[in-house]
Amino acid sequence: MKFYTLTTFPEIIDFYMSESIMGRAVKKGLIESVSINIRDYSLDKHHSTDDYPYGGGAGMIMQVQPVYDAWKAAYEKASGDSEGKPVRTVYFTAQGRTFNESIAKEYSTEESIILLCGHYEGIDERVIEEIAPDEISMGDFILTGGELPALTFMDAVSRLIPSVLHNDDSASDESFENDLLEYPQYSRPEIWHERKVPEILLSGDHAKVDAWRRDQAIERTKKRRPDLYEKFIRNSNNT
Amino acid sequence: MKFYTLTTFPEIIDFYMSESIMGRAVKKGLIESVSINIRDYSLDKHHSTDDYPYGGGAGMIMQVQPVYDAWKAAYEKASGDSEGKPVRTVYFTAQGRTFNESIAKEYSTEESIILLCGHYEGIDERVIEEIAPDEISMGDFILTGGELPALTFMDAVSRLIPSVLHNDDSASDESFENDLLEYPQYSRPEIWHERKVPEILLSGDHAKVDAWRRDQAIERTKKRRPDLYEKFIRNSNNT
Repeated sequence: MKFYTLTTFPEIIDFYMSESIMGRAVKKGLIESVSINIRDYSLDKHHSTDDYPYGGGAGMIMQVQPVYDAWKAAYEKASGDSEGKPVRTVYFTAQGRTFNESIAKEYSTEESIILLCGHYEGIDERVIEEIAPDEISMGDFILTGGELPALTFMDAVSRLIPSVLHNDDSASDESFENDLLEYPQYSRPEIWHERKVPEILLSGDHAKVDAWRRDQAIERTKKRRPDLYEKFIRNSNNT
Repeated sequence: MKFYTLTTFPEIIDFYMSESIMGRAVKKGLIESVSINIRDYSLDKHHSTDDYPYGGGAGMIMQVQPVYDAWKAAYEKASGDSEGKPVRTVYFTAQGRTFNESIAKEYSTEESIILLCGHYEGIDERVIEEIAPDEISMGDFILTGGELPALTFMDAVSRLIPSVLHNDDSASDESFENDLLEYPQYSRPEIWHERKVPEILLSGDHAKVDAWRRDQAIERTKKRRPDLYEKFIRNSNNT
């Protein structure tokens, strides 16, 4: 899987993708991260990438020319990698559909993905119409740029690629599997600040442990996320 | 505003907070980012911070001792900064309430905030009970660690602090203000790839521009985010 990230802050992308689990996956050749500086494609003599909005108002708008040319360069490279298979572009914007685990799964089988990071002020609408990217939102909040959403996307998608997570990394029953939150977890020591690990987890009875964990997961989901709980009940009734 | 981030990957926090708009805000003394390596507080001779879960299963669990001791050190420092005012701790977990712009606003008036980054495998439940943090989720997806959520939180909160954004940075009518998505934006040139900037934005008639933008924002919200649109209608009827 190869990610091409279009950004005005390539260092932010490069640093995160060289650290921790992402860094390890890159070194093992399981994923590849190429960041492309939109500024390098500006034909303006100051290499600027933004200008004032038509119609007035605060904020600068990223201009069509550098964004489109950077995208086109990325698209050509990415199409080469994937031997003509159409390459998806993701643009991070509050306008998009809200990212979640099933969207992450959907992208985890792609060969190349282009990620477009706007800045808070937005990108000229016409280049979005021309590129027609998938629009994804990280949630109902505003950030100074699209770099954290792009990294969040890459992290969530990459960890689904086989071998990116070691066995030790991956929890067996994760949140959002079967629309349930995760059950509580405990590790050594058995007693800490007078708080004891639940007896059942020490019993060695796997069937009982599994049943307890499932009950806990259901209980928590019901209490904390009634919306997920409803989905869980609906899906359980269907199977 | 001072952020104390408890993490096993302090470099990730430090790098992002030294770049772009966050870096500028730090240099101007508007925000401060202190990252605390949980590993430094481990009493284990290998400085390890995790161990196998009781009851079995894949994945390692962050242990109570290093997390609690690191948190306590941060809490003492943060309480000193805020002169005895209680300091909030935020723990990033899929179990928490979903982050949004009003939560960001709620935190933007704090003096110090402690951020606790778990890892995918989770933290021993007892230390969460003991610390009793605010639990926040970035969305219904799974990441390899809490660092990206912590950075997303700091970015969203910091940009609301006066002077962190320049005038040029801040769009006047942003997404989620009044429960509306943002209207489309355009910048030079007037015609690009046969796509023209909407006539009205060139008219110089501010009242008409404002009305057009509002209509566009309402139209988009209705089409792309019926849930937000409903909220908008409800609130409009109340005022």
